[in-house]
Amino acid sequence: MNVVEYMHTLGQQARLASRKLASAGTDIKNRALLAIATDIRAHAELLKQENARDLKSGQEKGLDAALLDRLTLTDARIESMAEGLEQIAALADPVGEVSDMTYRPSGIQLGKMRVPLGVVGIIYESRPNVTADAAALCLKSGNATILRGGSEAIHSNQAIAACIKRGLNLVGLPETVIQVVETTDRDAVGALITMSQYVDVIVPRGGKGLIERISQDARVPVIKHLDGICHVYIDKGADLDMAETIAINAKCHRYGVCNAMETLLVAADEANAILPRLAVKYAEEGVELRGCERTLQILTDINKATAEDWDTEYLAPILSIKIVDDIDEAIAHINRHSSGHTESIITQDYQRSRQFLAEVDSSSVMVNASTRFADGFEYGLGAEIGISTDKIHARGPVGLEGLTSQKWIVLGSGQIRK
Amino acid sequence: MNVVEYMHTLGQQARLASRKLASAGTDIKNRALLAIATDIRAHAELLKQENARDLKSGQEKGLDAALLDRLTLTDARIESMAEGLEQIAALADPVGEVSDMTYRPSGIQLGKMRVPLGVVGIIYESRPNVTADAAALCLKSGNATILRGGSEAIHSNQAIAACIKRGLNLVGLPETVIQVVETTDRDAVGALITMSQYVDVIVPRGGKGLIERISQDARVPVIKHLDGICHVYIDKGADLDMAETIAINAKCHRYGVCNAMETLLVAADEANAILPRLAVKYAEEGVELRGCERTLQILTDINKATAEDWDTEYLAPILSIKIVDDIDEAIAHINRHSSGHTESIITQDYQRSRQFLAEVDSSSVMVNASTRFADGFEYGLGAEIGISTDKIHARGPVGLEGLTSQKWIVLGSGQIRK
Repeated sequence: MNVVEYMHTLGQQARLASRKLASAGTDIKNRALLAIATDIRAHAELLKQENARDLKSGQEKGLDAALLDRLTLTDARIESMAEGLEQIAALADPVGEVSDMTYRPSGIQLGKMRVPLGVVGIIYESRPNVTADAAALCLKSGNATILRGGSEAIHSNQAIAACIKRGLNLVGLPETVIQVVETTDRDAVGALITMSQYVDVIVPRGGKGLIERISQDARVPVIKHLDGICHVYIDKGADLDMAETIAINAKCHRYGVCNAMETLLVAADEANAILPRLAVKYAEEGVELRGCERTLQILTDINKATAEDWDTEYLAPILSIKIVDDIDEAIAHINRHSSGHTESIITQDYQRSRQFLAEVDSSSVMVNASTRFADGFEYGLGAEIGISTDKIHARGPVGLEGLTSQKWIVLGSGQIRK
Repeated sequence: MNVVEYMHTLGQQARLASRKLASAGTDIKNRALLAIATDIRAHAELLKQENARDLKSGQEKGLDAALLDRLTLTDARIESMAEGLEQIAALADPVGEVSDMTYRPSGIQLGKMRVPLGVVGIIYESRPNVTADAAALCLKSGNATILRGGSEAIHSNQAIAACIKRGLNLVGLPETVIQVVETTDRDAVGALITMSQYVDVIVPRGGKGLIERISQDARVPVIKHLDGICHVYIDKGADLDMAETIAINAKCHRYGVCNAMETLLVAADEANAILPRLAVKYAEEGVELRGCERTLQILTDINKATAEDWDTEYLAPILSIKIVDDIDEAIAHINRHSSGHTESIITQDYQRSRQFLAEVDSSSVMVNASTRFADGFEYGLGAEIGISTDKIHARGPVGLEGLTSQKWIVLGSGQIRK
């Protein structure tokens, strides 16, 4: 069997399993999640042994330190995987939820029922814990999953897959509900993202390069975001203490995350008062500043931002700063340069807060809060499979509900169309 | 300027116009719709003259009678276009609706705001009234539109486009909010469905061939359905009078529509009682029956259904009939052969009604009602841009709400992530 045939077999099995899982009750799904958690804890030593094989060959291949760190399974990370499964078991089940029930003039009763998407394909890079996290979210939302991890984590992922299989077996769900691809052949990805007869949606998790390649070639819809170029705009008349606190948190809380601020916009009226204060704080945090022409007149010792800076996700302690005349210029800059992820205005003005909320075209838009809140846990989704900047279907943090769709249901008592 | 450059210009203009339209108030959008309706009524004679040019060249080209009929603009059809615009003006505006506002433990207040998709590309065939209908739905939902009608309707569509432009001008909205493609060059379609930087979603309206071609080549998401292979299942113990009434209505109310029944499934226990009754009625209506082996033992003078029949949308007075042992066999048949559009069970059994609703994986699932109800007007959506059998985003009849997405909004009072 070649790799394409192998992937089609996985696809057929997933499609069949998804039908069974779609009508599985909440109880059996939760018992499976808890059984997998128990099995992961019971096999912690084995997981670390298999992980050590991946780390050894990763070191031999000369993988960089950051990648090796993401690849490493420690006792704490294994415990965290098990806890994650338990947390997802504790969340409400979105499947079968009926909303908007209403009677129509014809006498039929109409509503919408939430249903799984079907089969979800997950493509991810080094972190083996994604195997358990993503599988658990899909299982709880009633979706069969095909997981394709990075080749550098193959032994770790297969060891986690074995825990998942034992957990599913224990409660009597088919093993094919969650399938971890066993080959490291790159053609497996090509097959996965084009077999739309078996796969309903692809969720890529990894760097921008991976996601761009997948989006380009996929025939199956992709839930994704490429970049997190997030903005904070300090409005005329903003509370400057609040502005300082949020601007520091949005940039410095964590640098390598998609909801960190990359560009700070400041109303010209506040620039003289706030920029020197911020420059001191950013210097303390070791953040490099790059300013527009007007910014350089206030912060004279920083670098000039180039055109490229406004379109760059640094994922690093670097921040671009631009002074704008007013909120209209701020919104225009955001709608042109933002990646549509998350933007925040710091303001005390009611009308301008409404304008910002209405006119900024991003998946999360905030008033007087740090962009770092754009996150499935903070939004109460319990967990997230990813963040979507697409407008079709789920947008922003995607949790259990984002992994479902709705169908219309009609309850009649014999009505016919006249 | 070649056709691709021309389409990119339309795309850029639409993207810019969509930003303006997204923040336009309900009042100005409604006034534009009413102004267009008035202009269409005022120019009824001109519309008929331009339409006559299309009909003349259509006759010269030898277009078939059905196509010429769909192409024809009569006084009644022009009035119906104007009324359609007024009805859409009377519908509630979905844009800006905020739902699910809730406080999170961090103190931020979180909700979802409904927003337009951006730019919608409509590709349609002969019926010129689609120009006004589709443009109106997109305008009300805050989306800029690029409309690409059939070459056989070019003069009619341009005349309607002129009415639309005058209406937009009168209220002060940019003309580029609704653009009707002025060339009949086929490359215009290829450009429209691939320029994802300018177009957010494509809605094809027409035959299966058109929609398949577009889905195959599009890089922009497509809201669509290919087939309407709809099923009615008459359950064991069904009210046979109700079953007869619904089975006749679902097939015979209109033959050429996507929500007509194409296959009737009958529980073996009821087959002897209901099939001869139905055969008499279908004969009166001139419907050709094609049965499975077991059906032929009861209705001895009908044709045998081939494997192909179970996967065919007849759009004609033809019906395939299959006897099944029980609801499980009926659901298995539906989930294998249905196009995911609409299915209905006729039953008096509570448990089996719930099973059918839960396990049938189609965009509309009904109990004791005719499949013909699967329609935007009947569902109270006011009007529909199409019916979607995709699970990602809108599913089933797609009206104003289906032309929008949501963004998350966060209202803080200075919260930062800890």
